[in-house]
Amino acid sequence: MFNSIKRLLIGRPLKNEAIHGEKFKVLWGLPILASDPISSVGYAGEEILLVLVPAIGALSFLYMAYISIAIIGLLFILTFSYSQTIAAYPSGGGAYIVAGDNLGHTAGVTAGTALVIDYILTVSVSIASGVAQLTSAFSALAPYHVLICLLILAILMIGNLRGLKDSSRIFSIPTYAFIVGSLAMIVIGIINFKLGKVVPHVGIPHVDAVRNLKETGAVSIFLILKAFSSGCTALTGVEAVSNAIPNFQTPASKNARKTLLLLSLFVFLIFGGITVLGFLYKVAPDSTGSTTVLNNIALIVFGRGIMFYFYTASSILILVLAANTAYSDFPLLMSIMGKDGYVPRQFSMRGDRLSFSNGIIILSLIAGLLIIIFRGEVTLLLPLYAIGAFASFTLSQFGMFMRWRKIKGKYWKMKAVINGFGALTTGIVVLIIGLEKFKRGAWIVIVVIPILVAMFMRVKKHYNALAKQLSIKPEDVANFNKEDNYYRNRVIVPLQSINKSSVRALRFAKTISENVIAFNVSTNEEDAEKVNEKYKILQTEIPLIVKYSPFRKVLTPLLKFIESAEYDYQKGDMITVILPQFAVKNWWQNMLHNNTSYFIRKELLKHKHIVVAIMPLQLKDDNFVLKSSKYK
Amino acid sequence: MFNSIKRLLIGRPLKNEAIHGEKFKVLWGLPILASDPISSVGYAGEEILLVLVPAIGALSFLYMAYISIAIIGLLFILTFSYSQTIAAYPSGGGAYIVAGDNLGHTAGVTAGTALVIDYILTVSVSIASGVAQLTSAFSALAPYHVLICLLILAILMIGNLRGLKDSSRIFSIPTYAFIVGSLAMIVIGIINFKLGKVVPHVGIPHVDAVRNLKETGAVSIFLILKAFSSGCTALTGVEAVSNAIPNFQTPASKNARKTLLLLSLFVFLIFGGITVLGFLYKVAPDSTGSTTVLNNIALIVFGRGIMFYFYTASSILILVLAANTAYSDFPLLMSIMGKDGYVPRQFSMRGDRLSFSNGIIILSLIAGLLIIIFRGEVTLLLPLYAIGAFASFTLSQFGMFMRWRKIKGKYWKMKAVINGFGALTTGIVVLIIGLEKFKRGAWIVIVVIPILVAMFMRVKKHYNALAKQLSIKPEDVANFNKEDNYYRNRVIVPLQSINKSSVRALRFAKTISENVIAFNVSTNEEDAEKVNEKYKILQTEIPLIVKYSPFRKVLTPLLKFIESAEYDYQKGDMITVILPQFAVKNWWQNMLHNNTSYFIRKELLKHKHIVVAIMPLQLKDDNFVLKSSKYK
Repeated sequence: MFNSIKRLLIGRPLKNEAIHGEKFKVLWGLPILASDPISSVGYAGEEILLVLVPAIGALSFLYMAYISIAIIGLLFILTFSYSQTIAAYPSGGGAYIVAGDNLGHTAGVTAGTALVIDYILTVSVSIASGVAQLTSAFSALAPYHVLICLLILAILMIGNLRGLKDSSRIFSIPTYAFIVGSLAMIVIGIINFKLGKVVPHVGIPHVDAVRNLKETGAVSIFLILKAFSSGCTALTGVEAVSNAIPNFQTPASKNARKTLLLLSLFVFLIFGGITVLGFLYKVAPDSTGSTTVLNNIALIVFGRGIMFYFYTASSILILVLAANTAYSDFPLLMSIMGKDGYVPRQFSMRGDRLSFSNGIIILSLIAGLLIIIFRGEVTLLLPLYAIGAFASFTLSQFGMFMRWRKIKGKYWKMKAVINGFGALTTGIVVLIIGLEKFKRGAWIVIVVIPILVAMFMRVKKHYNALAKQLSIKPEDVANFNKEDNYYRNRVIVPLQSINKSSVRALRFAKTISENVIAFNVSTNEEDAEKVNEKYKILQTEIPLIVKYSPFRKVLTPLLKFIESAEYDYQKGDMITVILPQFAVKNWWQNMLHNNTSYFIRKELLKHKHIVVAIMPLQLKDDNFVLKSSKYK
Repeated sequence: MFNSIKRLLIGRPLKNEAIHGEKFKVLWGLPILASDPISSVGYAGEEILLVLVPAIGALSFLYMAYISIAIIGLLFILTFSYSQTIAAYPSGGGAYIVAGDNLGHTAGVTAGTALVIDYILTVSVSIASGVAQLTSAFSALAPYHVLICLLILAILMIGNLRGLKDSSRIFSIPTYAFIVGSLAMIVIGIINFKLGKVVPHVGIPHVDAVRNLKETGAVSIFLILKAFSSGCTALTGVEAVSNAIPNFQTPASKNARKTLLLLSLFVFLIFGGITVLGFLYKVAPDSTGSTTVLNNIALIVFGRGIMFYFYTASSILILVLAANTAYSDFPLLMSIMGKDGYVPRQFSMRGDRLSFSNGIIILSLIAGLLIIIFRGEVTLLLPLYAIGAFASFTLSQFGMFMRWRKIKGKYWKMKAVINGFGALTTGIVVLIIGLEKFKRGAWIVIVVIPILVAMFMRVKKHYNALAKQLSIKPEDVANFNKEDNYYRNRVIVPLQSINKSSVRALRFAKTISENVIAFNVSTNEEDAEKVNEKYKILQTEIPLIVKYSPFRKVLTPLLKFIESAEYDYQKGDMITVILPQFAVKNWWQNMLHNNTSYFIRKELLKHKHIVVAIMPLQLKDDNFVLKSSKYK
């Protein structure tokens, strides 16, 4: 039942050999890796305006331009800084690896944890933002906002559990569509404005309306920083290229750097261009939250026609695609951390379809929980976002800085300066975001990261301790092969009554040891007498020990007996307790049998030198038994 | 944690020897056994009036008197009939035993099932009625009706799990208090009326008020039967004496019959007397359900003084006590049926405190569920009640009738007539109740009884089939003792890597068999190579089989291998699979280990001739391991 549903949703299991998919060139690599940063124009600009407009009205777009320039500047710093990482780590240089390699394990795990949180938020934020674009264009869907978010999440989860690799080229289409659509919108929008062909936009919030209400307020450094920290979400996902180097065709490093440069160029053009459009048309964010700025700009430029719907669709799809990138990044990072022993090793096992299913499921659960808690509202989710990404940028770039200082080499000072500057700026951004968004939710991330890091370090400690305990020393091997160092194997067969099942257990016991006893716990004298009588029928030399248990417990007398002088337990003895078990035909029949065997097993396994052997007796169908003459 | 809460609520475990409590004479036997029938005056009279008053107004009390006489007549028939059962079954003659003995298993199980249902309803109805008396006297408690019911249920459950026997004499007090209080109320009430000292009863529903609204309607036979069937609930619990014979002091039979006669006398006096009072004062049932007739009569007779509160308290306590009798009857019946194999045998095992804990818990759960479903309303619960009791009366008395016909003996014809008449009248009552209350809920019981009977018979069939499969034949004994008929014992040690745990398993394997193989499943060539390399270190002659599993499944290759020609499985081989298992110190560490071992075990146990031996490795505390030089 469960299996067939699973097969239907996830598909048939795949062989190991199916894992080697095709590697991508720049043309196909770009759209997959670029979807996260490029899609963030869907919310980053709006968040900046949400900070500025209520405070300074129409002046907002001027300052938004300044802030955008700062963010684009930051993007270029990151691009330079990361292209050095790509060159230095041709086999993949995510923050976890680079920081761990150059700054020590704790820094690596911290960078990894920051990224883990960031990936989760990428999913929540991108889906929430995509659905916001959808409900902005089709307001009838607004009441089902959270439900639609969860539906998309479920589709992404199932899709990724199936393994999406084969069809990755299809995913390029919405990215290119969005890039082409955005560039077209920017060009048409600017031309229209120059030609004075501005469509009057009824019902779209206009900054001048806000200005009428509020005269230009004071532009404080505080306000600018707040707006800047809101806009930095546009840069999350830039690190994706450095993770993905092994997926590029040779020369992988070179192709990856090309991709990174192109990605930066597109973010620059689209983020900058849409800022210009906002500036020209003065579109204010909708204080009711029912429409988005991007959607309203598209409405002004294209009118409610085919181009508008095409662009809206592509803006939704690219956001879903951005969420999807986290679905490949998160499970991969978890699998690497699992292999290193910082998270449960189950994360590094591939599922039926070769995807890291545990990572995919955990990601979906947490992202879904966040969507539900924050009612799928982008503005509520965003304060948690970006801080993780920038923390990992900082650690990664600082790690590169330390690396150049250590290994030196050609032009090392210049390289160290570039990465050092990258670390410094991203570090400052972390501080700004942390301070500006602290009260609105960033504190959650600031509290959670150290807790997770501590947990991961504790897990690693456990695996280390385990490895030490399990490691084989030469004397173990010598002992193993010594003839006289076998365990003295003794067998106890607990029996409630003398029946075929217990006879079978006794018969098996005789094959594995010379030292067998049968053990019965009686709760009254009559039963004890009965068992003794019936045992005589077997005419066996195996002694039967009957113990009286006034408290009707089965296990305690057995454990007491093992420890007693009567049993004479010697060091080096291995005691095998054989527990017969019925395997019934129907589920309900299980309820008819005393399940004490389960508890006995659990308790026995807590004791050293006790092996529990379960001997199943396959019961036949009741009707068959009662009709068959064999059992008469 | 769970254990300490359990100890606190239930108390320390008791020894078997603690079971022999004192036996009771008539004086102490009566109140315990009488609480159920006597307490039903709390609702039986009211239910009759609820049927009559809306139809025939003030005429109701006259007809109620007729109906009460009929019910009391029925009581005397039952008393005679049952006193013969007591004489014939001195070791306890419940309906299940008497019907099973004389009418065959199916009749016995049917009678048992009917009683099982009746006991459950005794609990629900008595508690609901007791709480109705309480909220009638203290209307502020009315909104918490269901909650109070469940609270009392919980107290009864815990009390009975602890075992209440020691304090059974305390339980006599409310019964005697209620008997004395009722008789006093009847006497005072009648004298007051004769003396014309009738207190004007403000706010108490009066039949004349109803009469004003509705002129005397037609008195149909239908109406009378309906009212009669509602009143029959007064007689449930009469069978309790016949179950309890072994608890009486010798001469048990004689004492039991005395008790039964006294019981009938008190029911006659109290039920009859309160009917007379109702007739004199014309108290109508409260259509809003917020006060009870019994409570209102007490209010008129005693006024709102100490006597009123004393009587109300005793009427509540006796109802709780009635519920409590079901707590000794139900688990006992289930334990007898469990011993016979009709219900899971777990019901016949005594818990820590020597009570049949499983029966007590199941009874509480179902009764609680009924209270919740029927919102704790007596009127909604009552249609389900009494039908089970009367069905078991009928079967039991008919069983006695058949018994006399078969064994004959002194005066057998007279005895047969008495029991036959008992069977006939109770049988007619079953029909009346079934028809009159069918739509109001009796259909549930009529549907459930045959379903339960079928289930119980199926359970018995399973136990029969099991017994047949498990029974030992002479050839089994002969085979068991033949020297050459041992199992050929072969051992497989599945290993993921070569570590202390797997070496320990191999070492143990060597002690139990000459025929050992190590088995590894690899998901890629590298791993296979690594395991092979490391295995060589052990310098052992045990062969290592490495199988490649393209689908990353562990179990399938193992099962395939066992069935393969390579392994050469022979008939009579017993294969022991040794599964090493880690026993960790903390619960969270369990999550860090691959739990495939559990699934492997479950699957392996489905196969014949495979014994699964679990070999636990007790892991040491992480800190200890990492600090201790022993593990360096």
